[in-house]
Amino acid sequence: MKEFLENAKKAAAVIAHLDGKTKAAVLEKIAENLEKKCSQITDANKIDMQEGKKNSLSSALLDRLFLDKSRVGAMAHSLREIATLKEPVGRVLDGWMNEDNLKIEKVSVPIGVIGVIYESRPNVTSDVAGLCIKSGNVAILKGGKEAKNSNEAIAKVISNTLKELELPQSIVSLVPDSSREAMNQLIKEDKYLDLIIPRGGEGLIRHISENATVPVVKHDKGLCHLFVDADADVAQSEKITLNAKVQRPGVCNAIETLLVHADIAKKFLPQVAKALEREGVELRGCEKTREIISVKEAKESDWDEEYLDMILAIKVVANVDEAIGHINRHGSGHSDAILTKDYANAEKFLNEVDAACCYVNSSTRFTDGGAFGFGAEVGISTNKLHSRGPMGINDLTTYKFKIYGSGQIRN
Amino acid sequence: MKEFLENAKKAAAVIAHLDGKTKAAVLEKIAENLEKKCSQITDANKIDMQEGKKNSLSSALLDRLFLDKSRVGAMAHSLREIATLKEPVGRVLDGWMNEDNLKIEKVSVPIGVIGVIYESRPNVTSDVAGLCIKSGNVAILKGGKEAKNSNEAIAKVISNTLKELELPQSIVSLVPDSSREAMNQLIKEDKYLDLIIPRGGEGLIRHISENATVPVVKHDKGLCHLFVDADADVAQSEKITLNAKVQRPGVCNAIETLLVHADIAKKFLPQVAKALEREGVELRGCEKTREIISVKEAKESDWDEEYLDMILAIKVVANVDEAIGHINRHGSGHSDAILTKDYANAEKFLNEVDAACCYVNSSTRFTDGGAFGFGAEVGISTNKLHSRGPMGINDLTTYKFKIYGSGQIRN
Repeated sequence: MKEFLENAKKAAAVIAHLDGKTKAAVLEKIAENLEKKCSQITDANKIDMQEGKKNSLSSALLDRLFLDKSRVGAMAHSLREIATLKEPVGRVLDGWMNEDNLKIEKVSVPIGVIGVIYESRPNVTSDVAGLCIKSGNVAILKGGKEAKNSNEAIAKVISNTLKELELPQSIVSLVPDSSREAMNQLIKEDKYLDLIIPRGGEGLIRHISENATVPVVKHDKGLCHLFVDADADVAQSEKITLNAKVQRPGVCNAIETLLVHADIAKKFLPQVAKALEREGVELRGCEKTREIISVKEAKESDWDEEYLDMILAIKVVANVDEAIGHINRHGSGHSDAILTKDYANAEKFLNEVDAACCYVNSSTRFTDGGAFGFGAEVGISTNKLHSRGPMGINDLTTYKFKIYGSGQIRN
Repeated sequence: MKEFLENAKKAAAVIAHLDGKTKAAVLEKIAENLEKKCSQITDANKIDMQEGKKNSLSSALLDRLFLDKSRVGAMAHSLREIATLKEPVGRVLDGWMNEDNLKIEKVSVPIGVIGVIYESRPNVTSDVAGLCIKSGNVAILKGGKEAKNSNEAIAKVISNTLKELELPQSIVSLVPDSSREAMNQLIKEDKYLDLIIPRGGEGLIRHISENATVPVVKHDKGLCHLFVDADADVAQSEKITLNAKVQRPGVCNAIETLLVHADIAKKFLPQVAKALEREGVELRGCEKTREIISVKEAKESDWDEEYLDMILAIKVVANVDEAIGHINRHGSGHSDAILTKDYANAEKFLNEVDAACCYVNSSTRFTDGGAFGFGAEVGISTNKLHSRGPMGINDLTTYKFKIYGSGQIRN
């Protein structure tokens, strides 16, 4: 492990200083080789799929695991898209002359060595490799064991391409030892690793946050809310509620709780309940909700639960303040929306809800790098620091100050 | 502790939304009251000073601990200066329309609840309180036990002022329990605390980094280098070397190692050694250095030592690459400088040295918020993430995305 990490650190000094054209050429070559070696990748994937079926993985998981020619093609396409992103390194973020006539420049630089821990989807292997190369970072990858063979086949293509281009193969590598103990060691190697990005279940992420000494940018819980204000457009609110809950209930930016202003509840709730139930959503309501529509009772614990499923908790609130209070108490600070025509309430909600993404008159489902226009999916941070919310390629950089003097000394 | 943290969290929701004028008025009032209650503060300080003498604190520590009317006046002055800083909350950092015609705005917001752990100097209590109030954050302070009475007296003035202004007193508070166990609990309270800034000895900071689940922005080691290139101006290099080593040897941005290009060593070393020794600096040289000047031998361990004292290690190097290699291997990523007339070497050094602050033709002593023109001293981060290098008041903010829609749903 020690030698592995030493090599990663050495490789970081190389990739950090490659120019944009070279990095784009590397990504193009990896994309080309992924397509060339497609059958080797899909063959490896077949082994994972067989194992997965043997171990009775759910059909959803198997679908995420599955690779065919078109999916490998999509991986190559994604790398080519990353190659076209604006150069993230060397952006001058700020600059000024200080009182001593020193020119101070704040410039974006790569973070260094980034560890990414993820599950099932093997395309993450090439996506993250591409994002790290583009941003001048070394990637240390730890995929899920259910995708072991697929990940190894993809990593081998990347590694061979780096070798072909006479670049250090340690720029992208899978951890040599994928045991739990090895992971527990890795997350404490703050002399070598500069950042860990865990993507996966809440338990895994909690474990890493609690034990890592390397900084962690988490991608975990999305307990999102939609608040329908007194004067909201009923038809639009119904459409947005359905979209936010039903379009993809298993993702972090789908809503789990609907908050409804008491003044609109009698009109809105029966209508939206009918539409939601038609889609197969199970509704759980507070007492006031159940005076209006006949649904299961929501327990106190429902307000804290990320269902990631076709279940929606509903609460009637007296006003925007109660809605904001509820969200800040029970939400996960991910994405919350207000539907309203009222200027003051919209502003209040945007300002006072303590979440990465606060929406007015829109579905919460737009919280991701793609929809934000970042052009590539690094992830969605539930941290408050370093990065918050959807992460673009620039979030894989930090900065340094360059100071240009002419003999200055301090008095 | 639980109730204390709950109150801090509640106070965070209040201070986050105060307007700039109100926050300035709070700071002005605290400044006024510090001046009014000056004798109570200096009386409390007398107890700490007596204790300190009894416990044989060094004269340097006693000096840092000491408060008189003029030093309390300086604390008040500092708060008034913080009050005049540009509003850090609500800055629009970025903004664009996405493909769905959503207006996305990236806006600075307070971080929330910030814990600051520090030692000896009681003025940190009011400085940090002022910086946190200005940036809309709650401050939880844990000062050193040697300054207990002074800190309590200052905190009491702040607390009473908040009460007088009908604001939650929990906006600024000292930890109720200053034991080691309480600190170990505090750094794991990530439900309540959003950031911990430890300022103090390396051991304390290491302990916190290793055990905290709350994000930590460290302020620790400064192992800084000065590299004198082959064609450097000898007189200027002597002046800068002296300034970087001697002006305040006990601070983190003073140099510990001098690297000298072999081509200039014979000319430069005898001259600079004479000047340094005249100032009382102990020199420790590599083999090549000792062929030129008669100094103690530098051991391998000297390259990794932060002396914070009148000692300087000297190494002769073959070229800029060897200098950069040495710095990246032994430095702490704080502040490093090259003295050169060569354009390419200057650029190489600025790009390849992996430090928060990279200087050309200047002393390293400018690395702090004051010299950078930030107007107030939050600290100097040795983290790579969230903040790196000198921290201004804007570093006490994070951001959120505000998204303005007109009924958008995701397809």
